[in-house]
Amino acid sequence: MTDQTVPTTAAGDPATARGEQTRQLILETALRMFRERGYARTTMRAIAQEAGVAVGNAYYYFGSKEHLIQEFYARTQEEHRVATQPVLARESDFAARLAGVLHAGIDVLTPSHEFAATFFKTAAEPTSPLSPFSAESSAPRQASIDLFAEVLAGSTAKVDAELRPQLPELLWLSYMGVVLFWVYDRSPDQARTRQLIDGAVPLVDRLVALSRLRVLRPVTRQVLDLVRTLRH
Amino acid sequence: MTDQTVPTTAAGDPATARGEQTRQLILETALRMFRERGYARTTMRAIAQEAGVAVGNAYYYFGSKEHLIQEFYARTQEEHRVATQPVLARESDFAARLAGVLHAGIDVLTPSHEFAATFFKTAAEPTSPLSPFSAESSAPRQASIDLFAEVLAGSTAKVDAELRPQLPELLWLSYMGVVLFWVYDRSPDQARTRQLIDGAVPLVDRLVALSRLRVLRPVTRQVLDLVRTLRH
Repeated sequence: MTDQTVPTTAAGDPATARGEQTRQLILETALRMFRERGYARTTMRAIAQEAGVAVGNAYYYFGSKEHLIQEFYARTQEEHRVATQPVLARESDFAARLAGVLHAGIDVLTPSHEFAATFFKTAAEPTSPLSPFSAESSAPRQASIDLFAEVLAGSTAKVDAELRPQLPELLWLSYMGVVLFWVYDRSPDQARTRQLIDGAVPLVDRLVALSRLRVLRPVTRQVLDLVRTLRH
Repeated sequence: MTDQTVPTTAAGDPATARGEQTRQLILETALRMFRERGYARTTMRAIAQEAGVAVGNAYYYFGSKEHLIQEFYARTQEEHRVATQPVLARESDFAARLAGVLHAGIDVLTPSHEFAATFFKTAAEPTSPLSPFSAESSAPRQASIDLFAEVLAGSTAKVDAELRPQLPELLWLSYMGVVLFWVYDRSPDQARTRQLIDGAVPLVDRLVALSRLRVLRPVTRQVLDLVRTLRH
Protein backbone atom coordinates (compact mmCIF):
# COMPACT_ATOMS: atom_id res chain seq x y z
CA MET A 1 0.00 0.00 0.00
CA THR A 2 2.18 2.87 -1.24
CA ASP A 3 1.35 6.09 -3.03
CA GLN A 4 2.09 4.28 -6.27
CA THR A 5 -0.52 1.55 -5.84
CA VAL A 6 -3.40 3.52 -4.34
CA PRO A 7 -5.25 5.71 -6.86
CA THR A 8 -5.37 9.26 -5.63
CA THR A 9 -8.63 11.15 -5.66
CA ALA A 10 -7.20 14.27 -7.32
CA ALA A 11 -9.40 15.71 -10.08
CA GLY A 12 -8.34 14.61 -13.53
CA ASP A 13 -6.85 11.37 -12.25
CA PRO A 14 -7.71 8.60 -14.76
CA ALA A 15 -8.92 6.17 -12.06
CA THR A 16 -11.18 8.87 -10.62
CA ALA A 17 -12.49 9.80 -14.04
CA ARG A 18 -13.31 6.15 -14.71
CA GLY A 19 -14.99 5.92 -11.30
CA GLU A 20 -17.05 9.01 -12.08
CA GLN A 21 -18.05 7.45 -15.43
CA THR A 22 -19.19 4.25 -13.73
CA ARG A 23 -21.05 6.25 -11.13
CA GLN A 24 -22.84 8.24 -13.86
CA LEU A 25 -23.64 5.07 -15.79
CA ILE A 26 -25.23 3.47 -12.73
CA LEU A 27 -27.22 6.61 -11.98
CA GLU A 28 -28.51 7.05 -15.55
CA THR A 29 -29.43 3.37 -15.76
CA ALA A 30 -31.25 3.52 -12.42
CA LEU A 31 -33.25 6.62 -13.34
CA ARG A 32 -34.27 5.07 -16.65
CA MET A 33 -35.36 1.86 -14.92
CA PHE A 34 -37.26 3.74 -12.19
CA ARG A 35 -39.12 5.53 -14.98
CA GLU A 36 -39.86 2.35 -16.92
CA ARG A 37 -40.64 -0.13 -14.12
CA GLY A 38 -41.34 2.08 -11.16
CA TYR A 39 -39.12 2.81 -8.18
CA ALA A 40 -40.45 0.08 -5.88
CA ARG A 41 -40.04 -2.70 -8.43
CA THR A 42 -36.47 -1.87 -9.46
CA THR A 43 -33.78 -3.61 -7.37
CA MET A 44 -30.11 -2.65 -7.01
CA ARG A 45 -29.28 -6.06 -8.47
CA ALA A 46 -31.32 -5.34 -11.61
CA ILE A 47 -29.75 -1.89 -11.95
CA ALA A 48 -26.22 -3.35 -11.72
CA GLN A 49 -27.07 -6.06 -14.26
CA GLU A 50 -28.59 -3.57 -16.70
CA ALA A 51 -25.58 -1.23 -16.33
CA GLY A 52 -23.20 -4.17 -16.83
CA VAL A 53 -21.40 -3.73 -13.51
CA ALA A 54 -20.98 -6.11 -10.57
CA VAL A 55 -23.60 -5.74 -7.82
CA GLY A 56 -20.82 -5.07 -5.29
CA ASN A 57 -19.52 -2.32 -7.54
CA ALA A 58 -22.95 -0.68 -7.72
CA TYR A 59 -23.21 -0.78 -3.93
CA TYR A 60 -19.72 0.74 -3.68
CA TYR A 61 -21.02 3.86 -5.41
CA PHE A 62 -24.55 3.94 -4.00
CA GLY A 63 -25.31 2.37 -0.63
CA SER A 64 -28.99 1.90 -1.57
CA LYS A 65 -31.70 2.92 -4.01
CA GLU A 66 -32.36 5.89 -1.77
CA HIS A 67 -28.82 7.11 -2.34
CA LEU A 68 -29.52 7.06 -6.07
CA ILE A 69 -32.51 9.33 -5.57
CA GLN A 70 -30.53 11.61 -3.26
CA GLU A 71 -27.95 11.86 -6.03
CA PHE A 72 -30.74 12.69 -8.47
CA TYR A 73 -31.89 15.47 -6.11
CA ALA A 74 -28.36 16.81 -5.72
CA ARG A 75 -27.75 16.78 -9.47
CA THR A 76 -31.11 18.39 -10.26
CA GLN A 77 -30.45 21.06 -7.64
CA GLU A 78 -27.01 21.81 -9.11
CA GLU A 79 -28.45 22.02 -12.64
CA HIS A 80 -31.11 24.38 -11.28
CA ARG A 81 -28.46 26.61 -9.69
CA VAL A 82 -26.40 26.74 -12.88
CA ALA A 83 -29.47 27.44 -15.02
CA THR A 84 -30.42 30.45 -12.89
CA GLN A 85 -27.05 32.20 -13.02
CA PRO A 86 -27.80 34.27 -16.17
CA VAL A 87 -31.11 35.63 -14.88
CA LEU A 88 -29.67 36.30 -11.42
CA ALA A 89 -26.69 38.12 -12.95
CA ARG A 90 -28.96 40.18 -15.23
CA GLU A 91 -32.00 41.13 -13.14
CA SER A 92 -32.27 43.10 -9.94
CA ASP A 93 -36.08 43.19 -9.88
CA PHE A 94 -37.37 40.73 -7.27
CA ALA A 95 -40.28 39.49 -9.40
CA ALA A 96 -38.07 38.93 -12.46
CA ARG A 97 -35.50 37.03 -10.36
CA LEU A 98 -38.18 34.90 -8.69
CA ALA A 99 -39.90 34.12 -12.01
CA GLY A 100 -36.53 33.20 -13.53
CA VAL A 101 -35.68 30.80 -10.72
CA LEU A 102 -39.12 29.15 -10.68
CA HIS A 103 -39.25 28.68 -14.46
CA ALA A 104 -35.66 27.37 -14.49
CA GLY A 105 -36.60 24.84 -11.81
CA ILE A 106 -39.41 23.48 -13.97
CA ASP A 107 -37.14 23.59 -17.08
CA VAL A 108 -34.63 21.36 -15.29
CA LEU A 109 -37.32 19.00 -14.01
CA THR A 110 -39.19 18.68 -17.32
CA PRO A 111 -37.30 15.64 -18.70
CA SER A 112 -38.19 13.83 -15.44
CA HIS A 113 -41.92 14.57 -15.53
CA GLU A 114 -43.01 11.01 -16.20
CA PHE A 115 -40.63 9.68 -13.57
CA ALA A 116 -41.77 12.31 -11.04
CA ALA A 117 -45.41 11.25 -11.38
CA THR A 118 -44.64 7.61 -10.61
CA PHE A 119 -42.03 8.45 -8.00
CA PHE A 120 -44.10 10.99 -6.09
CA LYS A 121 -45.97 8.28 -4.18
CA THR A 122 -42.73 7.36 -2.42
CA ALA A 123 -41.33 10.85 -1.92
CA ALA A 124 -44.56 12.33 -0.58
CA GLU A 125 -44.59 10.08 2.48
CA PRO A 126 -43.42 12.40 5.25
CA THR A 127 -41.56 9.55 6.97
CA SER A 128 -39.67 8.69 3.76
CA PRO A 129 -35.98 9.68 3.69
CA LEU A 130 -36.78 10.78 0.12
CA SER A 131 -39.27 13.41 1.21
CA PRO A 132 -37.95 16.92 0.44
CA PHE A 133 -38.58 17.65 4.13
CA SER A 134 -36.52 14.72 5.50
CA ALA A 135 -33.22 14.94 7.39
CA GLU A 136 -31.64 12.92 4.58
CA SER A 137 -32.65 15.54 2.01
CA SER A 138 -31.25 18.43 4.04
CA ALA A 139 -28.28 19.16 1.75
CA PRO A 140 -30.24 19.68 -1.51
CA ARG A 141 -33.02 21.39 0.47
CA GLN A 142 -30.57 23.85 1.99
CA ALA A 143 -28.95 24.44 -1.41
CA SER A 144 -32.38 25.19 -2.83
CA ILE A 145 -33.26 27.56 0.04
CA ASP A 146 -29.89 29.27 -0.55
CA LEU A 147 -30.89 29.85 -4.16
CA PHE A 148 -34.03 31.66 -2.98
CA ALA A 149 -31.87 33.61 -0.52
CA GLU A 150 -29.85 34.72 -3.56
CA VAL A 151 -33.09 35.73 -5.35
CA LEU A 152 -33.82 38.06 -2.43
CA ALA A 153 -30.29 39.27 -1.59
CA GLY A 154 -29.51 40.38 -5.14
CA SER A 155 -32.83 42.17 -5.56
CA THR A 156 -33.91 45.72 -4.83
CA ALA A 157 -36.94 44.45 -2.85
CA LYS A 158 -37.66 46.19 0.44
CA VAL A 159 -38.89 43.65 2.93
CA ASP A 160 -40.22 43.76 6.49
CA ALA A 161 -37.29 43.14 8.86
CA GLU A 162 -38.97 40.24 10.62
CA LEU A 163 -39.94 38.56 7.35
CA ARG A 164 -36.59 38.95 5.55
CA PRO A 165 -34.61 36.16 7.28
CA GLN A 166 -37.53 33.73 6.87
CA LEU A 167 -38.51 34.67 3.33
CA PRO A 168 -36.09 32.34 1.48
CA GLU A 169 -37.62 29.34 3.24
CA LEU A 170 -41.16 30.58 2.52
CA LEU A 171 -40.23 31.00 -1.15
CA TRP A 172 -38.81 27.48 -1.15
CA LEU A 173 -42.05 26.17 0.39
CA SER A 174 -44.00 27.92 -2.38
CA TYR A 175 -41.64 26.33 -4.89
CA MET A 176 -42.46 22.90 -3.39
CA GLY A 177 -46.12 23.79 -3.96
CA VAL A 178 -45.35 24.61 -7.61
CA VAL A 179 -43.48 21.30 -7.98
CA LEU A 180 -46.45 19.41 -6.46
CA PHE A 181 -48.76 21.13 -8.94
CA TRP A 182 -46.34 20.25 -11.77
CA VAL A 183 -46.15 16.57 -10.75
CA TYR A 184 -49.91 16.28 -11.31
CA ASP A 185 -50.08 18.69 -14.25
CA ARG A 186 -51.45 16.79 -17.26
CA SER A 187 -51.74 19.82 -19.57
CA PRO A 188 -49.53 19.74 -22.71
CA ASP A 189 -45.95 20.69 -21.77
CA GLN A 190 -47.29 21.37 -18.26
CA ALA A 191 -48.51 24.73 -19.51
CA ARG A 192 -50.73 25.20 -16.47
CA THR A 193 -47.69 25.09 -14.19
CA ARG A 194 -46.23 27.95 -16.23
CA GLN A 195 -49.51 29.84 -15.79
CA LEU A 196 -49.37 29.18 -12.07
CA ILE A 197 -45.85 30.65 -11.87
CA ASP A 198 -46.78 33.67 -14.00
CA GLY A 199 -49.85 34.32 -11.86
CA ALA A 200 -48.24 33.67 -8.48
CA VAL A 201 -45.04 35.71 -8.93
CA PRO A 202 -46.70 39.18 -9.16
CA LEU A 203 -48.86 38.17 -6.18
CA VAL A 204 -45.86 37.16 -4.06
CA ASP A 205 -44.01 40.28 -5.22
CA ARG A 206 -46.89 42.48 -4.08
CA LEU A 207 -47.28 40.69 -0.74
CA VAL A 208 -43.55 41.03 -0.05
CA ALA A 209 -43.74 44.76 -0.82
CA LEU A 210 -46.82 45.15 1.39
CA SER A 211 -45.14 43.27 4.26
CA ARG A 212 -43.72 46.61 5.46
CA LEU A 213 -47.18 48.10 6.01
CA ARG A 214 -47.98 48.33 9.68
CA VAL A 215 -51.44 46.82 9.14
CA LEU A 216 -49.90 43.69 7.62
CA ARG A 217 -47.24 43.07 10.27
CA PRO A 218 -49.55 40.86 12.36
CA VAL A 219 -50.28 38.78 9.24
CA THR A 220 -46.56 38.29 8.63
CA ARG A 221 -46.08 37.29 12.26
CA GLN A 222 -48.95 34.79 12.05
CA VAL A 223 -47.56 33.20 8.90
CA LEU A 224 -44.09 32.88 10.45
CA ASP A 225 -45.51 31.45 13.68
CA LEU A 226 -47.53 28.90 11.74
CA VAL A 227 -44.54 27.75 9.70
CA ARG A 228 -42.45 27.52 12.87
CA THR A 229 -45.12 25.46 14.64
CA LEU A 230 -45.45 23.01 11.78
CA ARG A 231 -41.72 22.67 11.21
CA HIS A 232 -40.81 21.78 14.85
CA MET B 1 -95.24 -7.03 -14.41
CA THR B 2 -98.05 -5.52 -12.35
CA ASP B 3 -98.02 -3.21 -9.36
CA GLN B 4 -98.27 -6.29 -7.19
CA THR B 5 -95.04 -7.90 -8.39
CA VAL B 6 -92.76 -4.85 -8.70
CA PRO B 7 -91.44 -3.53 -5.35
CA THR B 8 -92.21 0.15 -4.99
CA THR B 9 -89.49 2.59 -3.98
CA ALA B 10 -91.53 4.42 -1.34
CA ALA B 11 -89.59 5.19 1.83
CA GLY B 12 -90.28 2.74 4.62
CA ASP B 13 -91.14 0.00 2.17
CA PRO B 14 -89.63 -3.28 3.45
CA ALA B 15 -88.05 -4.10 0.06
CA THR B 16 -86.40 -0.67 -0.05
CA ALA B 17 -85.15 -0.99 3.51
CA ARG B 18 -83.68 -4.39 2.63
CA GLY B 19 -82.10 -2.86 -0.47
CA GLU B 20 -80.60 -0.04 1.59
CA GLN B 21 -79.21 -2.62 4.02
CA THR B 22 -77.58 -4.56 1.20
CA ARG B 23 -76.20 -1.37 -0.24
CA GLN B 24 -74.70 -0.40 3.13
CA LEU B 25 -73.28 -3.89 3.59
CA ILE B 26 -71.55 -3.76 0.21
CA LEU B 27 -70.18 -0.28 0.90
CA GLU B 28 -68.86 -1.14 4.38
CA THR B 29 -67.29 -4.34 3.08
CA ALA B 30 -65.65 -2.50 0.19
CA LEU B 31 -64.20 0.25 2.39
CA ARG B 32 -62.80 -2.33 4.81
CA MET B 33 -61.21 -4.27 1.94
CA PHE B 34 -59.80 -1.13 0.30
CA ARG B 35 -58.20 -0.35 3.66
CA GLU B 36 -56.81 -3.86 4.14
CA ARG B 37 -55.71 -4.76 0.61
CA GLY B 38 -55.52 -1.44 -1.16
CA TYR B 39 -57.95 0.03 -3.65
CA ALA B 40 -56.26 -1.20 -6.82
CA ARG B 41 -56.05 -4.82 -5.67
CA THR B 42 -59.67 -5.14 -4.54
CA THR B 43 -62.08 -6.30 -7.26
CA MET B 44 -65.88 -5.96 -7.35
CA ARG B 45 -66.03 -9.76 -7.46
CA ALA B 46 -64.02 -10.06 -4.23
CA ILE B 47 -66.18 -7.40 -2.55
CA ALA B 48 -69.38 -9.24 -3.51
CA GLN B 49 -67.97 -12.55 -2.30
CA GLU B 50 -66.84 -11.08 1.03
CA ALA B 51 -70.21 -9.37 1.53
CA GLY B 52 -72.02 -12.62 0.68
CA VAL B 53 -74.01 -11.20 -2.24
CA ALA B 54 -74.10 -12.18 -5.90
CA VAL B 55 -71.70 -10.23 -8.14
CA GLY B 56 -74.65 -9.08 -10.28
CA ASN B 57 -76.34 -7.79 -7.14
CA ALA B 58 -73.24 -5.79 -6.16
CA TYR B 59 -73.13 -4.25 -9.63
CA TYR B 60 -76.83 -3.43 -9.36
CA TYR B 61 -76.05 -1.12 -6.44
CA PHE B 62 -72.65 0.18 -7.56
CA GLY B 63 -71.75 0.31 -11.24
CA SER B 64 -68.02 0.15 -10.43
CA LYS B 65 -65.44 0.53 -7.68
CA GLU B 66 -65.42 4.24 -8.46
CA HIS B 67 -69.10 4.44 -7.57
CA LEU B 68 -68.25 2.98 -4.19
CA ILE B 69 -65.73 5.75 -3.57
CA GLN B 70 -68.17 8.39 -4.81
CA GLU B 71 -70.64 7.00 -2.28
CA PHE B 72 -67.95 7.24 0.39
CA TYR B 73 -67.41 10.90 -0.57
CA ALA B 74 -71.14 11.63 -0.50
CA ARG B 75 -71.59 9.94 2.86
CA THR B 76 -68.54 11.67 4.38
CA GLN B 77 -69.76 15.01 3.08
CA GLU B 78 -73.22 14.47 4.58
CA GLU B 79 -71.70 13.45 7.94
CA HIS B 80 -69.56 16.59 7.79
CA ARG B 81 -72.62 18.76 7.17
CA VAL B 82 -74.56 17.20 10.05
CA ALA B 83 -71.55 17.47 12.40
CA THR B 84 -71.26 21.21 11.73
CA GLN B 85 -74.87 22.12 12.45
CA PRO B 86 -74.37 22.80 16.20
CA VAL B 87 -71.41 25.15 15.72
CA LEU B 88 -73.08 26.92 12.78
CA ALA B 89 -76.27 27.36 14.84
CA ARG B 90 -74.33 28.68 17.85
CA GLU B 91 -71.58 30.93 16.46
CA SER B 92 -71.78 34.07 14.36
CA ASP B 93 -68.06 34.85 14.50
CA PHE B 94 -66.45 33.98 11.16
CA ALA B 95 -63.28 32.49 12.69
CA ALA B 96 -65.25 30.33 15.15
CA ARG B 97 -67.51 29.05 12.36
CA LEU B 98 -64.57 28.30 10.07
CA ALA B 99 -62.59 26.54 12.82
CA GLY B 100 -65.69 24.50 13.69
CA VAL B 101 -66.21 23.36 10.12
CA LEU B 102 -62.54 22.52 9.52
CA HIS B 103 -62.19 20.58 12.77
CA ALA B 104 -65.48 18.75 12.12
CA GLY B 105 -64.21 17.76 8.66
CA ILE B 106 -61.13 16.16 10.20
CA ASP B 107 -63.26 14.55 12.96
CA VAL B 108 -65.41 12.86 10.32
CA LEU B 109 -62.39 11.76 8.28
CA THR B 110 -60.36 10.45 11.24
CA PRO B 111 -61.63 6.82 11.17
CA SER B 112 -60.55 6.71 7.49
CA HIS B 113 -57.02 8.00 8.01
CA GLU B 114 -55.29 4.74 7.20
CA PHE B 115 -57.48 4.22 4.15
CA ALA B 116 -56.93 7.80 2.98
CA ALA B 117 -53.15 7.37 3.00
CA THR B 118 -53.29 4.31 0.76
CA PHE B 119 -56.09 5.67 -1.37
CA PHE B 120 -54.58 9.10 -1.96
CA LYS B 121 -52.35 7.78 -4.76
CA THR B 122 -55.44 7.14 -6.86
CA ALA B 123 -57.45 10.21 -5.92
CA ALA B 124 -54.60 12.67 -6.39
CA GLU B 125 -54.28 11.91 -10.11
CA PRO B 126 -55.97 14.93 -11.72
CA THR B 127 -57.34 12.76 -14.52
CA SER B 128 -58.93 10.34 -12.04
CA PRO B 129 -62.72 10.53 -11.72
CA LEU B 130 -62.01 10.18 -7.99
CA SER B 131 -60.07 13.42 -7.78
CA PRO B 132 -61.96 15.99 -5.68
CA PHE B 133 -61.61 18.30 -8.71
CA SER B 134 -63.17 15.89 -11.23
CA ALA B 135 -66.53 16.27 -12.99
CA GLU B 136 -67.61 13.01 -11.35
CA SER B 137 -66.99 14.47 -7.88
CA SER B 138 -68.95 17.64 -8.59
CA ALA B 139 -71.92 16.80 -6.33
CA PRO B 140 -69.96 16.27 -3.08
CA ARG B 141 -67.61 19.11 -4.05
CA GLN B 142 -70.53 21.51 -4.51
CA ALA B 143 -72.09 20.34 -1.24
CA SER B 144 -68.78 21.04 0.50
CA ILE B 145 -68.45 24.48 -1.10
CA ASP B 146 -72.05 25.17 0.01
CA LEU B 147 -71.02 24.37 3.57
CA PHE B 148 -68.31 27.04 3.37
CA ALA B 149 -70.88 29.42 1.86
CA GLU B 150 -72.93 28.79 5.01
CA VAL B 151 -69.86 29.54 7.18
CA LEU B 152 -69.68 32.94 5.51
CA ALA B 153 -73.38 33.74 5.11
CA GLY B 154 -74.21 33.13 8.77
CA SER B 155 -71.24 35.15 10.01
CA THR B 156 -70.82 38.83 10.87
CA ALA B 157 -67.70 39.04 8.66
CA LYS B 158 -67.43 42.08 6.42
CA VAL B 159 -65.86 41.06 3.14
CA ASP B 160 -64.72 42.86 0.00
CA ALA B 161 -67.58 42.77 -2.53
CA GLU B 162 -65.47 41.19 -5.26
CA LEU B 163 -64.12 38.53 -2.93
CA ARG B 164 -67.40 37.55 -1.26
CA PRO B 165 -68.92 35.40 -4.06
CA GLN B 166 -65.61 33.59 -4.59
CA LEU B 167 -64.69 33.15 -0.95
CA PRO B 168 -66.58 29.86 -0.33
CA GLU B 169 -64.61 28.19 -3.11
CA LEU B 170 -61.32 29.62 -1.81
CA LEU B 171 -62.16 28.31 1.67
CA TRP B 172 -62.94 24.92 0.16
CA LEU B 173 -59.57 24.96 -1.66
CA SER B 174 -57.86 25.73 1.66
CA TYR B 175 -59.80 22.85 3.20
CA MET B 176 -58.44 20.56 0.44
CA GLY B 177 -54.97 21.77 1.47
CA VAL B 178 -55.75 20.85 5.10
CA VAL B 179 -56.97 17.41 3.99
CA LEU B 180 -53.79 16.88 1.95
CA PHE B 181 -51.72 17.81 5.00
CA TRP B 182 -53.83 15.43 7.12
CA VAL B 183 -53.40 12.52 4.68
CA TYR B 184 -49.63 12.70 5.19
CA ASP B 185 -49.77 13.66 8.86
CA ARG B 186 -47.96 10.96 10.88
CA SER B 187 -48.14 12.76 14.23
CA PRO B 188 -50.17 11.00 16.97
CA ASP B 189 -53.89 11.61 16.37
CA GLN B 190 -52.85 13.91 13.51
CA ALA B 191 -52.19 16.61 16.09
CA ARG B 192 -50.22 18.69 13.60
CA THR B 193 -53.27 18.99 11.37
CA ARG B 194 -55.13 20.43 14.35
CA GLN B 195 -52.26 22.89 14.86
CA LEU B 196 -52.42 23.81 11.20
CA ILE B 197 -56.15 24.58 11.49
CA ASP B 198 -55.70 26.56 14.71
CA GLY B 199 -52.88 28.57 13.15
CA ALA B 200 -54.48 29.09 9.75
CA VAL B 201 -57.96 30.16 10.89
CA PRO B 202 -56.93 33.45 12.59
CA LEU B 203 -54.76 34.18 9.56
CA VAL B 204 -57.59 33.62 7.09
CA ASP B 205 -59.92 35.59 9.36
CA ARG B 206 -57.53 38.55 9.35
CA LEU B 207 -56.96 38.41 5.60
CA VAL B 208 -60.71 38.33 4.96
CA ALA B 209 -61.16 41.37 7.22
CA LEU B 210 -58.28 43.18 5.48
CA SER B 211 -59.71 42.39 2.03
CA ARG B 212 -61.75 45.60 2.26
CA LEU B 213 -58.63 47.79 2.50
CA ARG B 214 -58.00 49.67 -0.70
CA VAL B 215 -54.33 48.70 -0.72
CA LEU B 216 -55.22 45.00 -0.69
CA ARG B 217 -57.85 45.06 -3.45
CA PRO B 218 -55.27 44.34 -6.17
CA VAL B 219 -54.07 41.33 -4.16
CA THR B 220 -57.60 39.98 -3.95
CA ARG B 221 -58.03 40.50 -7.67
CA GLN B 222 -54.77 38.69 -8.43
CA VAL B 223 -55.74 35.74 -6.26
CA LEU B 224 -59.15 35.47 -7.94
CA ASP B 225 -57.63 35.78 -11.42
CA LEU B 226 -55.10 33.06 -10.64
CA VAL B 227 -57.77 30.66 -9.35
CA ARG B 228 -59.92 31.39 -12.41
CA THR B 229 -56.99 30.76 -14.78
CA LEU B 230 -56.11 27.45 -13.19
CA ARG B 231 -59.70 26.25 -12.97
CA HIS B 232 -60.58 26.81 -16.64
